[in-house]
Amino acid sequence: MINVAIVGASGYTGLELLKMLIHHPKFNITYIATSNGGESLHTLHPSLTHIFNAPVEKADAKAIAQKAELAFLALPHKASMGFAKELLALDVKVVDLSADYRLELETYEKHYCPHEDKAHLKDAVYGLPEMYRDEIKKTNLVANPGCYPTASILGILPFTKYIDENFPIFIDAKSGVSGAGKKCTNNTHYISINENIFAYNPFMHRHEPEIKEKLRLQSGKEFDVNFVPHLIPATRGEMIDAYMLLKEEINPIAVLEEFYKDEAFVRIFENPVDLKSCAGTNFCDIFAKVKGKKLYINSAVDNILRGASSQAVANANLMCGFEEHLAIPTIAYVP
Amino acid sequence: MINVAIVGASGYTGLELLKMLIHHPKFNITYIATSNGGESLHTLHPSLTHIFNAPVEKADAKAIAQKAELAFLALPHKASMGFAKELLALDVKVVDLSADYRLELETYEKHYCPHEDKAHLKDAVYGLPEMYRDEIKKTNLVANPGCYPTASILGILPFTKYIDENFPIFIDAKSGVSGAGKKCTNNTHYISINENIFAYNPFMHRHEPEIKEKLRLQSGKEFDVNFVPHLIPATRGEMIDAYMLLKEEINPIAVLEEFYKDEAFVRIFENPVDLKSCAGTNFCDIFAKVKGKKLYINSAVDNILRGASSQAVANANLMCGFEEHLAIPTIAYVP
Amino acid sequence: MINVAIVGASGYTGLELLKMLIHHPKFNITYIATSNGGESLHTLHPSLTHIFNAPVEKADAKAIAQKAELAFLALPHKASMGFAKELLALDVKVVDLSADYRLELETYEKHYCPHEDKAHLKDAVYGLPEMYRDEIKKTNLVANPGCYPTASILGILPFTKYIDENFPIFIDAKSGVSGAGKKCTNNTHYISINENIFAYNPFMHRHEPEIKEKLRLQSGKEFDVNFVPHLIPATRGEMIDAYMLLKEEINPIAVLEEFYKDEAFVRIFENPVDLKSCAGTNFCDIFAKVKGKKLYINSAVDNILRGASSQAVANANLMCGFEEHLAIPTIAYVP
Amino acid sequence: MINVAIVGASGYTGLELLKMLIHHPKFNITYIATSNGGESLHTLHPSLTHIFNAPVEKADAKAIAQKAELAFLALPHKASMGFAKELLALDVKVVDLSADYRLELETYEKHYCPHEDKAHLKDAVYGLPEMYRDEIKKTNLVANPGCYPTASILGILPFTKYIDENFPIFIDAKSGVSGAGKKCTNNTHYISINENIFAYNPFMHRHEPEIKEKLRLQSGKEFDVNFVPHLIPATRGEMIDAYMLLKEEINPIAVLEEFYKDEAFVRIFENPVDLKSCAGTNFCDIFAKVKGKKLYINSAVDNILRGASSQAVANANLMCGFEEHLAIPTIAYVP
Repeated sequence: MINVAIVGASGYTGLELLKMLIHHPKFNITYIATSNGGESLHTLHPSLTHIFNAPVEKADAKAIAQKAELAFLALPHKASMGFAKELLALDVKVVDLSADYRLELETYEKHYCPHEDKAHLKDAVYGLPEMYRDEIKKTNLVANPGCYPTASILGILPFTKYIDENFPIFIDAKSGVSGAGKKCTNNTHYISINENIFAYNPFMHRHEPEIKEKLRLQSGKEFDVNFVPHLIPATRGEMIDAYMLLKEEINPIAVLEEFYKDEAFVRIFENPVDLKSCAGTNFCDIFAKVKGKKLYINSAVDNILRGASSQAVANANLMCGFEEHLAIPTIAYVP
Repeated sequence: MINVAIVGASGYTGLELLKMLIHHPKFNITYIATSNGGESLHTLHPSLTHIFNAPVEKADAKAIAQKAELAFLALPHKASMGFAKELLALDVKVVDLSADYRLELETYEKHYCPHEDKAHLKDAVYGLPEMYRDEIKKTNLVANPGCYPTASILGILPFTKYIDENFPIFIDAKSGVSGAGKKCTNNTHYISINENIFAYNPFMHRHEPEIKEKLRLQSGKEFDVNFVPHLIPATRGEMIDAYMLLKEEINPIAVLEEFYKDEAFVRIFENPVDLKSCAGTNFCDIFAKVKGKKLYINSAVDNILRGASSQAVANANLMCGFEEHLAIPTIAYVP
Repeated sequence: MINVAIVGASGYTGLELLKMLIHHPKFNITYIATSNGGESLHTLHPSLTHIFNAPVEKADAKAIAQKAELAFLALPHKASMGFAKELLALDVKVVDLSADYRLELETYEKHYCPHEDKAHLKDAVYGLPEMYRDEIKKTNLVANPGCYPTASILGILPFTKYIDENFPIFIDAKSGVSGAGKKCTNNTHYISINENIFAYNPFMHRHEPEIKEKLRLQSGKEFDVNFVPHLIPATRGEMIDAYMLLKEEINPIAVLEEFYKDEAFVRIFENPVDLKSCAGTNFCDIFAKVKGKKLYINSAVDNILRGASSQAVANANLMCGFEEHLAIPTIAYVP
Repeated sequence: MINVAIVGASGYTGLELLKMLIHHPKFNITYIATSNGGESLHTLHPSLTHIFNAPVEKADAKAIAQKAELAFLALPHKASMGFAKELLALDVKVVDLSADYRLELETYEKHYCPHEDKAHLKDAVYGLPEMYRDEIKKTNLVANPGCYPTASILGILPFTKYIDENFPIFIDAKSGVSGAGKKCTNNTHYISINENIFAYNPFMHRHEPEIKEKLRLQSGKEFDVNFVPHLIPATRGEMIDAYMLLKEEINPIAVLEEFYKDEAFVRIFENPVDLKSCAGTNFCDIFAKVKGKKLYINSAVDNILRGASSQAVANANLMCGFEEHLAIPTIAYVP
């Protein structure tokens, strides 16, 4: 058994981490923290009543290092790198769910803020197992991908050699409200969301450069990625509809099936995917279709599982030498 | 006062017609029919209890001609042209909400079925007032546009001279469930829709050729329109996100404001639009943004009002020489 | 034309007042205020773009008195009586949507706070037209009823002489989220509400004494009212299910129909009512059923119209000598 | 390992059985049937793609007996007793999720239809483990309780000795739409449910006599149970609000905690319960409150788990000598 810490346990991704780790066969939760501490776990998450209880500490790197070998950081960007830096120095493995180690330095600083842990940034591994499984197994620091990039990259990756990079890729994304966080804002008020849909930050979302960079790293090609996310009236789940041009005609389902033939957590469908069939799981479900040289890619993930916490646990499994699938949910909540 | 008939009063568009016509200052509802008749209007639409009542007939063209000067046909395609043909021969003006008179013959027969009223087809006017207001005023037969084409065409029209027609236009559309009709199917079951989203008929929807044809007729250019509609967990409303390339850089808000400066039922917004701000009204709300030569158009309508019944009433107003805005709703239901 | 002011225009009830008053045939909106002022009406309510605009002032009683003969106060309790007191002294008629003038002094102070305008409190008329129409016509100060009391009292009132007051009345109420206000809180977050339902303040809600007091005033009997409200995943609408014992067996539909035979804004149904058939209107829809001496009453209203703003406009109509129904919505938003 | 059959795999309860049994440590699914057979499991339940596959047979008792020692019957009433009778004769244990063996003969025939397996009816055990755990362990036939009775009985049971049976018990129940089944009807159409709530079968639902009978069997007292169910805009989950009079004043939380102190699948809360905290689990969550001698009980279950399938698996575990909690879900889906 390996002792693990969850730092940032109050939010949705923190709760999802708890839900998986409570019954993980190889991980033992020995430390739970929020930024303030002092709360009861059952007040934070009443659904855990009678299931699991533990003190909730005020997050402290030294205390973590005494109690855990690996820490999940479910913190905002900037706060996260402060902790990660300290934890790595104390020999604690880190799975960071924030954006802090996802991007190359220049891109990060352009879209977020000055980076305060450049030393570790260059060694961090981007935690998309389908791209970097071998590297994840050997690293002490995984940058867990963003939710939109996970669904977008998994959808587009099999096609990079066929896509005409002289034309833009347009990604129209739809996310459930859990992606906007637990904080009550005008945009998370029930009445703003219910019976509604709206785009936000069109062509300006910070996941756009993340998608672009990873596609370049895998393919060596510079794609012109254009990203428009929407909030939809749903709690969890995320769908990507990507539109682009091909250099040649292909059978997109055959391409997908070949590319993912050995992958346990990607499913290829011959019809458009939906949120509910993968909500509650680590699956990325993908459909694609062509009309002449126009390619439509349609992928879906659970934004707080495959797009955050279950991918984080899969990464932790790999980092600790375990099988990737331990405690990873595969049975959707549907209905 | 002009006497009008509603044929096909049982569905959502039939109900919306009733809601407007009950208090219309110039139209008098003298005939209401469904395909079977014999039902009570209050059984069909309990919300009309104490508001309005009238017998519901089995639809019959001769009876309509005796009682009304203008008929709204809210019928399925094919059924509609049978009635329209007879009504026009009996000198009844027709606003047809089906697809039967929307397309050129060849396109219609390719996507629907053999046409049975070719004589009237070539005289029918496409009922988008912003394109054909003058023609609508003079015709006896209006083909009321589809919901997706209304929002798509109104969004794209101002830009046709700037768009690079060598590159495809991708339209990612999202519709509330009322667009799928009142019939209970697997796709309209609450549990299929709630907490879900899914595409249907990607690149194959019958509104795709309608959008393409109207853009060609207005601009003389052949655009490569690619259309992917989705059902979302909402009752009413529809959003269009269209992606395309420009031949030159433009200020899209300025283009929209200039193009629609005299239009009463189009609103230009400087931020992304949402469903709720126009649901319940005849407005088409439009936002647009560019990144270099990439253009993003974002428009929203109430699919059963501007996308069907309120546009039908506006057309009827024009056909009868009245002001376009009579009984047309402008105050959104929000919250 | 009578000039009117809306004080507290930023919330849902403020918006509903605007929606009705914009086209009111006899009222002219001459003053709009929020507690801070300085905002644009279109920022507060984007759906009003192109429909109506006006400056939004910082609420000030003297300015109101210069510009309006009647003021709607859509303010929190306590704040409201401060304004009302001043306005009445300046000869401005007041329709107060808060709780400040709804209750007898002792009850008010027990459940709210010390009363600061006792002089006017005793002259205020409770604005339920079905109970106090004649008094409303003569007063300068109407206390607009709470949403739950409106639906509860209208449901129970016809039965007071048959109800056995030796047994409790249990009211199980369900409200859409607009009842909880526009402020973002944990209880209005989309994820707290969606796919959920929960009771709040069981047996402790401040509308309980309001219901009890009005039933006593009408019947002379002291009923033991026990009230449990719930939030449901809906934006607008409110349902009351009330359970009680009768002294004798009755035909409840006949009782309802007789009691409300002259009322334009109460509808009696022979089947259970639903939210959607009255949402968007001023109707109170009522169904009732007995099993032996057990009585079940089932009523529904739009909580921000009949439960707030449309009732307020009806009261204002009466206070100004107009017909009650002017600008009062009767056509439901359904679907 | 014990081989089990699922008969009636196409509905929601069939899917929930599959979700638990796929990873059950002691049960092996060897037979899956629907009434017609011949379908693919992945067509019935696309979410199971890549997780589990098996042929779907046309249900046949002899085939079941050859392949399984225990059968779950997720069939409509009447169809179910036909199968159960045959299976029991062939020595197959049966957990029947229909109403066929839940009631005493006379009550059954009054509310359902003539009973066709009276022999087994009198030996069937009502599968509420908190009432009949010892009997369940010894029987070959469990009648799995209805969803409403499960939540109602578990809420009321601890109080039977305190309740004044001279006064009625009123139960106001709220169910998610999965309780209405997978079939598309007017009442399960998205637009009928969304933004709505309505009662159905008030004082006439067939779960009313089931609640009454079980309370009598446990307490020896005849309670006057009056039941009004509602459909709410939610997919899964069910809430019971029960109102009644006590013979004496009590501390209801203390009563609940004492009564359930040894139960693993009942949780007592000091605040009103909600659907989401138990949705996805086998828990029944209960809160209660008194005002004088008036008692309010508020309980919640997942209607297709504790109200159907997870309770069925718990019963099967007991019938086969296993621990009750094997494969029983305890971690809620929330958020």
